[in-house]
Amino acid sequence: MAVRLTENALGRMVPTEINGRRAVPFVGVGKHRPEGSKTAPPIRSCADYPGDGNKVVPDLATALKNAGIRDGMTISSHHHFRNGDKMANAVFDAAASLGVRDLRWFPSATFPCHAPIIGHMDNGIVHHIEGSMNSPMGDYCSAGKMRGMGVLRSHGGRWQAVQDGEVHIDIAVIAAPTADPFGNANGVTGPSACGPLGFALVDSIYADHVIVVTDNLIEFPCIPWQIQGNNVDQVVVMDSIGDPQEIVSGTTVLTKSPDRLLIAEYTARFIRDAGIMKDGFSFQAGAGGTALAFATFLKEMMKEAGVKARFIRGGSTRYLVEMLEEGLTDYILDGQTFDLEGVRSMRENPHHQDTSPFTSYNFHGKGCFASMVDATILGATEVDVEFNANVVTHSDGRLQHGMGGWQNCLAGRCVILPVPSVRDRIPVVVERVTTLCGPGELIDVVITERGIAINPRRRDLIDAVKGSNLPIRPIEEIKAEVEAMCGGAPAPPKLGDKVVAVVKWVDGTVIDCVRQVE
Amino acid sequence: MAVRLTENALGRMVPTEINGRRAVPFVGVGKHRPEGSKTAPPIRSCADYPGDGNKVVPDLATALKNAGIRDGMTISSHHHFRNGDKMANAVFDAAASLGVRDLRWFPSATFPCHAPIIGHMDNGIVHHIEGSMNSPMGDYCSAGKMRGMGVLRSHGGRWQAVQDGEVHIDIAVIAAPTADPFGNANGVTGPSACGPLGFALVDSIYADHVIVVTDNLIEFPCIPWQIQGNNVDQVVVMDSIGDPQEIVSGTTVLTKSPDRLLIAEYTARFIRDAGIMKDGFSFQAGAGGTALAFATFLKEMMKEAGVKARFIRGGSTRYLVEMLEEGLTDYILDGQTFDLEGVRSMRENPHHQDTSPFTSYNFHGKGCFASMVDATILGATEVDVEFNANVVTHSDGRLQHGMGGWQNCLAGRCVILPVPSVRDRIPVVVERVTTLCGPGELIDVVITERGIAINPRRRDLIDAVKGSNLPIRPIEEIKAEVEAMCGGAPAPPKLGDKVVAVVKWVDGTVIDCVRQVE
Repeated sequence: MAVRLTENALGRMVPTEINGRRAVPFVGVGKHRPEGSKTAPPIRSCADYPGDGNKVVPDLATALKNAGIRDGMTISSHHHFRNGDKMANAVFDAAASLGVRDLRWFPSATFPCHAPIIGHMDNGIVHHIEGSMNSPMGDYCSAGKMRGMGVLRSHGGRWQAVQDGEVHIDIAVIAAPTADPFGNANGVTGPSACGPLGFALVDSIYADHVIVVTDNLIEFPCIPWQIQGNNVDQVVVMDSIGDPQEIVSGTTVLTKSPDRLLIAEYTARFIRDAGIMKDGFSFQAGAGGTALAFATFLKEMMKEAGVKARFIRGGSTRYLVEMLEEGLTDYILDGQTFDLEGVRSMRENPHHQDTSPFTSYNFHGKGCFASMVDATILGATEVDVEFNANVVTHSDGRLQHGMGGWQNCLAGRCVILPVPSVRDRIPVVVERVTTLCGPGELIDVVITERGIAINPRRRDLIDAVKGSNLPIRPIEEIKAEVEAMCGGAPAPPKLGDKVVAVVKWVDGTVIDCVRQVE
Repeated sequence: MAVRLTENALGRMVPTEINGRRAVPFVGVGKHRPEGSKTAPPIRSCADYPGDGNKVVPDLATALKNAGIRDGMTISSHHHFRNGDKMANAVFDAAASLGVRDLRWFPSATFPCHAPIIGHMDNGIVHHIEGSMNSPMGDYCSAGKMRGMGVLRSHGGRWQAVQDGEVHIDIAVIAAPTADPFGNANGVTGPSACGPLGFALVDSIYADHVIVVTDNLIEFPCIPWQIQGNNVDQVVVMDSIGDPQEIVSGTTVLTKSPDRLLIAEYTARFIRDAGIMKDGFSFQAGAGGTALAFATFLKEMMKEAGVKARFIRGGSTRYLVEMLEEGLTDYILDGQTFDLEGVRSMRENPHHQDTSPFTSYNFHGKGCFASMVDATILGATEVDVEFNANVVTHSDGRLQHGMGGWQNCLAGRCVILPVPSVRDRIPVVVERVTTLCGPGELIDVVITERGIAINPRRRDLIDAVKGSNLPIRPIEEIKAEVEAMCGGAPAPPKLGDKVVAVVKWVDGTVIDCVRQVE
């Protein structure tokens, strides 16, 4: 069935209807104004819950049955366990055992460990996934095999979509490393400790029915209560909800690639030389090898200059924890911990504060933290000469990645994309990104091993680094150099007409779509 | 204007309409089932808030004007500053300067320091108060001078009323001992530190517009953020938002009255001898002189028996803090701190957890903490032979007190009212309470200096203390003895027909009303 497409404000053709629901095309950064009131779950009564606070039921199937699971419902889960998650598969196995069909899975992200759910899409238990689709799920979607249209949202966009009533969650299932029988839960203690549980917070607040699943049931009260039992209907105990080895990696590894190290160093130097690195500043980087290397370069520069940050945004790693413990920042504000040191620090240090997409990223709130970060370091699969960037597809058009908080972070004061100019002999700096996830007007600097391109809109940054010995170059020049080396621009992807997924902007409008790969 | 009255399930005549809105008469404990969905505030957009997170405006009048204050609006405030609050008066002075009229003030409680607002009721700025009305406000209301009908709610009932959309807050003004320019706020630091800010939480979540007022503005991020800036529209800085001497008393004083000490001792012994005081148990008492004495007696008994509590519910005082620090409880779960030691402990000790009416008391949630407390110690102005109790009026019918969390706490597993049998030569144990705030079926034990009456419904408790040397007596016998001593039952109050206030039950139904005193 062909969907009707319309051109949005960035010149991208996007569907006007998604899975039977009207969609609003992107109209420009900050231009779309929401209407109406937030959604809200049914009013409950203590009279219908056990007075002793014990909400434990024997197993997932019982809990789903008690929750009134029916064909076509939306089931949500979170991704704090990353590739170690055992719960989502167990939920859909239990749903299958109950004979329900056509469920919509609304995860905060998917990982390769969730490949069995492809089987549940094949057999009709799951209708489609509405959330990020990584490697195997991405291939399945790209091949046009998924019955519904995929909807890719940022972390903040997921909060916005639930809050605004765009996605109604019937049943939220929340894996919790520690919980009490009342449903209070946290992620900082227990054998499956993962750090915060912020990605599940919106589910716990807005879903009709909330099930907490734990492998570490403790006596009431479970403190801290990152998830509040007063929002929880049932508690299920499983032997193991996740594989600790895969939940956190224990150690996070710096890049050893000379190119990537150079990019990381350029990035740190840019922040220093542009005058952003000063007392009370803030930054956010990721947990990839280049981002970690950047943090270690910046740390040395901060020590040298005697500069202390006010806060660093996580995902946290031992590198950030060291900075906190060495007094190089007052706070870590952290949405997910990437290693055991991050978990420990969040558990022990009140200056390591867990955050949620509500505080950090929700664009339909009264402000959010993302716009208050001085330097935001992000990745990209492609970036084009207009500084537009792609994070979800490769240049062959295949959907391979979720967006995480990427779109939300574009609100930062200085947004930097440190990217290799070439990956696997394919240029990363291109004429026009395959999928437009972030508008160029929000991307300030692209840093490659071949030089640093500053967005011409940021006259202030261009001026700020004048006189530095950084290799500032026009982006077109970097692109030309890369193409010369690779034998030209990347081949255009071979795409069909069918729209297999859309990319939402932070305000719920549609910024681009992903087509079937032929 | 006469209101139509109907008889509720407890035989009390109550209005069917309150301030123009239909009211549901009490139908029995746990019998009323709510319908519909929670209320929700309008969806906002970051595009309408400063990207740098700075929401500070020059003063209260500016903030109220920006908030669109209009005649007839509802303005809320909290009472964590108790009799030291300077903010509520300033808010209505500012409103007066803007020329608005007929405001509804929706405080979580009022104190004598708020007497100037009586002037604003006289001059038409404030239409009526919807919240507890203590001494001067109570007299004003009792005299029939208030234009609207008073509505008395428990702390949990206040959350329920806002959550359920029964009370729509147009503008919440939240006094915060520490805040950042984004509106993140807490009560544990700063010169006006009061401990938690839980009573203001519901206002921050559901009000259309939220203003945080502080006298201690710090750099973002203000951590902990008991109030989240993402719910806040504006921040105002005042020289002083409260008088620290009156916010917390510094020292809380044990009773010296021999009768009250005896009552306190009986209460502790009852809990011990009934087998409630055992490892992992929990209790809640208040901060009055008798309650504090009870806690010290119980503490000694716990030490003697080698018993450790799992949690103690605050209002906290230094007595509870000592128990926490001496290892006699794992946690304090605390809705308000009554002295500086309570504030310090909440600031420093992660086992001293702040709570809100949502976690503790909201009856229209998925359970709440109140029903999980093993022994709940409460006060009363009157208790009758059916174990019904009154906390808001005196036997002369004058409205003098708010209910606090009293009604909510009746959900506890063993609810004990330690009360003197006589106050000012007037019997406290009576035939029929003047105002029925709590149904006798929820009140298990009445402890006076003349003996202990166990509710006949609690056969288990009667059996449990058989063989103890506690002075267990029928309540009728205590009543008869007291009346003999006082020269008879209290004179019936001289009341008019006019209903000046209603008392809501925890589920929003009307349990009783208060009439004008002639």
